[in-house]
Amino acid sequence: MYIIMVYDVGEKRVGRILKVGRQYLNWVQNSVLEGELTDAQFERLKSDVRKRFNKDEDCILFYVMRTDRYTQREILGQQKGDPLSTIL
Amino acid sequence: MYIIMVYDVGEKRVGRILKVGRQYLNWVQNSVLEGELTDAQFERLKSDVRKRFNKDEDCILFYVMRTDRYTQREILGQQKGDPLSTIL
Repeated sequence: MYIIMVYDVGEKRVGRILKVGRQYLNWVQNSVLEGELTDAQFERLKSDVRKRFNKDEDCILFYVMRTDRYTQREILGQQKGDPLSTIL
Repeated sequence: MYIIMVYDVGEKRVGRILKVGRQYLNWVQNSVLEGELTDAQFERLKSDVRKRFNKDEDCILFYVMRTDRYTQREILGQQKGDPLSTIL
């Protein structure tokens, strides 16, 4: 499955959540990562995030697609993340 | 088409870009909006963004899907945005 992860977390936890995300996904932009994962990897990612975030203050949003075939990415301005990737 | 918009812009321009985005899309989370647009509306949104952002410093990312049928949203923690919506 193809996952887009967007996080909005307290300043203290930004580095920690980005680090977890990068273990599974490619960094695309400030607070956005994406990549292809198996079901098991996605479950592990969510479990790792749950251990490290504050559920009362933070929000982690995942868009889950069976395939990236129906999604295109358009960027205005500066691309900041890792060189990409499968969707284009 | 279904659009997810994620912006990463200088602090001075955050309010301005959010305001433009909300004219077309629903706010989902800090820096994330989404919604159904026609081709013409999407072109107008991009044109409005281009007038208001700094192309050398800011980044606006759009994920463009023909339909939201193949995408699911999962949220960990606090949902902050508008009550949603079509993907679930």
